[in-house]
Amino acid sequence: MAKHEPDLDILFHALSDPTRRAMLARLAEGPAAVTELAAPTGLRLPTVLRHLSVLEGAGLIATAKDGRIRTCAIVPAALTPARDWMEAQRALWEARLDRLDAYVMKLMQEAGDDA
Amino acid sequence: MAKHEPDLDILFHALSDPTRRAMLARLAEGPAAVTELAAPTGLRLPTVLRHLSVLEGAGLIATAKDGRIRTCAIVPAALTPARDWMEAQRALWEARLDRLDAYVMKLMQEAGDDA
Repeated sequence: MAKHEPDLDILFHALSDPTRRAMLARLAEGPAAVTELAAPTGLRLPTVLRHLSVLEGAGLIATAKDGRIRTCAIVPAALTPARDWMEAQRALWEARLDRLDAYVMKLMQEAGDDA
Repeated sequence: MAKHEPDLDILFHALSDPTRRAMLARLAEGPAAVTELAAPTGLRLPTVLRHLSVLEGAGLIATAKDGRIRTCAIVPAALTPARDWMEAQRALWEARLDRLDAYVMKLMQEAGDDA
Protein backbone atom coordinates (compact mmCIF):
# COMPACT_ATOMS: atom_id res chain seq x y z
CA MET A 1 0.00 0.00 0.00
CA ALA A 2 2.69 2.49 1.04
CA LYS A 3 4.62 3.23 -2.14
CA HIS A 4 8.25 4.02 -1.41
CA GLU A 5 8.64 7.71 -2.22
CA PRO A 6 11.37 8.91 0.13
CA ASP A 7 11.55 12.24 -1.75
CA LEU A 8 8.00 13.07 -0.75
CA ASP A 9 8.67 12.12 2.88
CA ILE A 10 11.66 14.45 2.97
CA LEU A 11 9.89 17.23 1.03
CA PHE A 12 6.75 17.32 3.16
CA HIS A 13 8.83 17.06 6.32
CA ALA A 14 10.93 20.03 5.19
CA LEU A 15 7.73 22.04 4.56
CA SER A 16 6.19 21.19 7.94
CA ASP A 17 8.14 23.88 9.80
CA PRO A 18 7.15 27.58 9.76
CA THR A 19 10.76 28.83 9.90
CA ARG A 20 11.69 26.72 6.90
CA ARG A 21 8.61 27.84 4.95
CA ALA A 22 9.44 31.48 5.73
CA MET A 23 13.02 30.93 4.53
CA LEU A 24 11.73 29.48 1.26
CA ALA A 25 9.33 32.41 0.82
CA ARG A 26 12.23 34.82 1.34
CA LEU A 27 14.45 32.91 -1.10
CA ALA A 28 11.70 32.86 -3.74
CA GLU A 29 12.39 36.60 -4.02
CA GLY A 30 16.10 36.04 -4.65
CA PRO A 31 19.24 34.51 -3.15
CA ALA A 32 20.30 35.56 0.36
CA ALA A 33 23.24 35.13 2.70
CA VAL A 34 22.77 32.87 5.74
CA THR A 35 23.06 35.86 8.07
CA GLU A 36 20.29 37.65 6.15
CA LEU A 37 18.03 34.60 6.46
CA ALA A 38 18.86 34.24 10.15
CA ALA A 39 18.17 37.85 11.17
CA PRO A 40 14.33 37.89 11.13
CA THR A 41 14.03 34.46 12.78
CA GLY A 42 15.59 35.51 16.09
CA LEU A 43 17.11 32.01 16.20
CA ARG A 44 20.69 31.13 17.04
CA LEU A 45 22.97 30.40 14.09
CA PRO A 46 23.28 26.61 14.77
CA THR A 47 19.48 26.31 14.67
CA VAL A 48 19.30 28.34 11.47
CA LEU A 49 21.99 26.15 9.90
CA ARG A 50 20.06 23.04 10.91
CA HIS A 51 16.93 24.36 9.16
CA LEU A 52 18.95 25.24 6.06
CA SER A 53 20.48 21.79 6.07
CA VAL A 54 16.99 20.20 6.09
CA LEU A 55 15.98 22.43 3.14
CA GLU A 56 19.18 21.56 1.27
CA GLY A 57 18.73 17.85 2.02
CA ALA A 58 15.25 18.04 0.49
CA GLY A 59 16.75 19.67 -2.61
CA LEU A 60 14.66 22.80 -2.00
CA ILE A 61 17.66 25.12 -1.78
CA ALA A 62 21.26 25.13 -2.96
CA THR A 63 24.04 26.86 -1.05
CA ALA A 64 27.43 28.12 -2.19
CA LYS A 65 30.30 29.61 -0.22
CA ASP A 66 32.12 32.69 -1.47
CA GLY A 67 34.92 33.49 0.96
CA ARG A 68 33.30 33.70 4.40
CA ILE A 69 29.78 34.27 3.04
CA ARG A 70 27.45 31.35 2.40
CA THR A 71 24.66 32.24 -0.02
CA CYS A 72 21.41 30.28 -0.37
CA ALA A 73 19.22 30.07 -3.46
CA ILE A 74 15.90 28.35 -4.01
CA VAL A 75 15.52 25.37 -6.37
CA PRO A 76 11.93 25.92 -7.54
CA ALA A 77 11.61 22.62 -9.43
CA ALA A 78 12.11 20.75 -6.16
CA LEU A 79 8.50 21.46 -5.17
CA THR A 80 7.18 19.68 -8.27
CA PRO A 81 6.84 16.15 -6.78
CA ALA A 82 4.81 17.56 -3.86
CA ARG A 83 2.59 19.52 -6.22
CA ASP A 84 2.20 16.47 -8.48
CA TRP A 85 1.16 14.33 -5.54
CA MET A 86 -1.51 16.87 -4.57
CA GLU A 87 -2.77 17.06 -8.13
CA ALA A 88 -2.94 13.25 -8.31
CA GLN A 89 -5.02 13.27 -5.12
CA ARG A 90 -7.35 15.85 -6.60
CA ALA A 91 -7.64 13.80 -9.82
CA LEU A 92 -8.54 10.65 -7.87
CA TRP A 93 -11.16 12.56 -5.95
CA GLU A 94 -12.65 14.21 -9.04
CA ALA A 95 -12.77 10.88 -10.88
CA ARG A 96 -14.74 9.53 -7.94
CA LEU A 97 -17.16 12.48 -8.07
CA ASP A 98 -17.61 11.89 -11.81
CA ARG A 99 -18.45 8.22 -11.17
CA LEU A 100 -20.96 9.26 -8.49
CA ASP A 101 -22.48 11.78 -10.92
CA ALA A 102 -22.82 9.14 -13.64
CA TYR A 103 -24.38 6.74 -11.13
CA VAL A 104 -26.93 9.31 -9.94
CA MET A 105 -27.79 10.18 -13.58
CA LYS A 106 -28.34 6.47 -14.29
CA LEU A 107 -30.59 6.08 -11.23
CA MET A 108 -32.60 9.15 -12.28
CA GLN A 109 -32.94 7.84 -15.83
CA GLU A 110 -34.09 4.44 -14.58
CA ALA A 111 -36.61 6.13 -12.28
CA GLY A 112 -37.83 8.08 -15.33
CA ASP A 113 -38.15 4.87 -17.40
CA ASP A 114 -40.22 3.27 -14.61
CA ALA A 115 -42.62 6.21 -14.36
CA MET B 1 9.72 35.99 9.68
CA ALA B 2 7.97 32.70 10.52
CA LYS B 3 4.28 33.42 10.15
CA HIS B 4 2.23 31.37 12.58
CA GLU B 5 0.35 28.89 10.41
CA PRO B 6 -0.09 25.84 12.64
CA ASP B 7 -2.48 24.30 10.09
CA LEU B 8 0.29 24.09 7.51
CA ASP B 9 2.69 22.57 10.05
CA ILE B 10 0.16 19.86 10.87
CA LEU B 11 -0.85 19.32 7.23
CA PHE B 12 2.65 18.94 5.85
CA HIS B 13 3.64 16.75 8.79
CA ALA B 14 0.62 14.49 8.11
CA LEU B 15 1.68 14.22 4.45
CA SER B 16 5.31 13.39 5.26
CA ASP B 17 4.60 9.70 5.90
CA PRO B 18 4.16 7.14 3.07
CA THR B 19 1.57 5.07 4.96
CA ARG B 20 -0.57 8.15 5.56
CA ARG B 21 -0.27 9.26 1.93
CA ALA B 22 -1.28 5.78 0.78
CA MET B 23 -4.30 5.87 3.12
CA LEU B 24 -5.35 9.22 1.65
CA ALA B 25 -4.94 7.89 -1.89
CA ARG B 26 -7.14 4.90 -1.00
CA LEU B 27 -9.75 7.13 0.63
CA ALA B 28 -9.83 9.44 -2.38
CA GLU B 29 -11.54 6.52 -4.15
CA GLY B 30 -14.22 6.25 -1.48
CA PRO B 31 -14.76 5.70 2.25
CA ALA B 32 -13.26 2.61 3.88
CA ALA B 33 -13.39 0.79 7.20
CA VAL B 34 -10.31 0.93 9.42
CA THR B 35 -9.69 -2.81 8.92
CA GLU B 36 -9.75 -2.30 5.13
CA LEU B 37 -7.21 0.51 5.40
CA ALA B 38 -5.05 -1.54 7.75
CA ALA B 39 -4.91 -4.73 5.63
CA PRO B 40 -2.46 -3.63 2.88
CA THR B 41 -0.13 -1.85 5.31
CA GLY B 42 0.92 -4.98 7.21
CA LEU B 43 1.00 -2.75 10.31
CA ARG B 44 -0.48 -3.56 13.70
CA LEU B 45 -3.82 -1.96 14.48
CA PRO B 46 -2.48 0.50 17.14
CA THR B 47 0.02 1.84 14.59
CA VAL B 48 -2.71 2.16 11.96
CA LEU B 49 -4.95 3.99 14.43
CA ARG B 50 -2.09 6.35 15.25
CA HIS B 51 -1.68 7.20 11.56
CA LEU B 52 -5.43 7.73 11.19
CA SER B 53 -5.45 9.95 14.23
CA VAL B 54 -2.72 12.15 12.67
CA LEU B 55 -4.78 12.40 9.47
CA GLU B 56 -7.93 13.21 11.43
CA GLY B 57 -6.05 15.79 13.54
CA ALA B 58 -4.93 17.50 10.32
CA GLY B 59 -8.57 17.57 9.14
CA LEU B 60 -7.66 15.40 6.16
CA ILE B 61 -10.11 12.65 7.06
CA ALA B 62 -13.27 12.29 9.10
CA THR B 63 -14.22 9.08 10.87
CA ALA B 64 -17.58 7.79 12.08
CA LYS B 65 -18.46 4.71 14.09
CA ASP B 66 -21.40 2.52 13.13
CA GLY B 67 -21.72 -0.26 15.68
CA ARG B 68 -18.28 -1.89 15.86
CA ILE B 69 -17.13 -0.60 12.47
CA ARG B 70 -15.24 2.68 12.17
CA THR B 71 -15.40 4.15 8.69
CA CYS B 72 -13.01 6.79 7.37
CA ALA B 73 -13.71 9.32 4.63
CA ILE B 74 -11.46 11.90 3.02
CA VAL B 75 -12.04 15.66 3.46
CA PRO B 76 -10.70 16.92 0.11
CA ALA B 77 -10.89 20.63 0.96
CA ALA B 78 -8.36 20.07 3.76
CA LEU B 79 -5.53 19.99 1.23
CA THR B 80 -6.36 23.49 0.01
CA PRO B 81 -4.09 25.47 2.40
CA ALA B 82 -1.12 23.30 1.39
CA ARG B 83 -1.91 23.75 -2.29
CA ASP B 84 -2.39 27.50 -1.77
CA TRP B 85 0.98 27.77 -0.06
CA MET B 86 2.68 26.02 -2.98
CA GLU B 87 0.92 28.25 -5.49
CA ALA B 88 1.97 31.34 -3.52
CA GLN B 89 5.57 30.11 -3.66
CA ARG B 90 5.31 29.61 -7.40
CA ALA B 91 3.79 33.09 -7.80
CA LEU B 92 6.66 34.69 -5.82
CA TRP B 93 9.17 32.84 -7.96
CA GLU B 94 7.49 33.74 -11.25
CA ALA B 95 7.22 37.40 -10.24
CA ARG B 96 10.95 37.31 -9.62
CA LEU B 97 11.61 35.77 -13.06
CA ASP B 98 9.44 38.47 -14.63
CA ARG B 99 11.49 41.17 -12.90
CA LEU B 100 14.70 39.53 -14.11
CA ASP B 101 13.27 39.36 -17.65
CA ALA B 102 12.34 43.04 -17.58
CA TYR B 103 15.81 43.90 -16.28
CA VAL B 104 17.57 41.90 -18.99
CA MET B 105 15.35 43.50 -21.65
CA LYS B 106 16.26 46.93 -20.31
CA LEU B 107 19.99 46.11 -20.36
CA MET B 108 19.71 44.84 -23.94
CA GLN B 109 17.80 47.94 -25.01
CA GLU B 110 20.42 50.21 -23.40
CA ALA B 111 23.19 48.20 -25.11
CA GLY B 112 21.27 48.71 -28.38
CA ASP B 113 20.99 52.47 -27.78
CA ASP B 114 24.75 52.66 -27.16
CA ALA B 115 25.61 50.76 -30.38
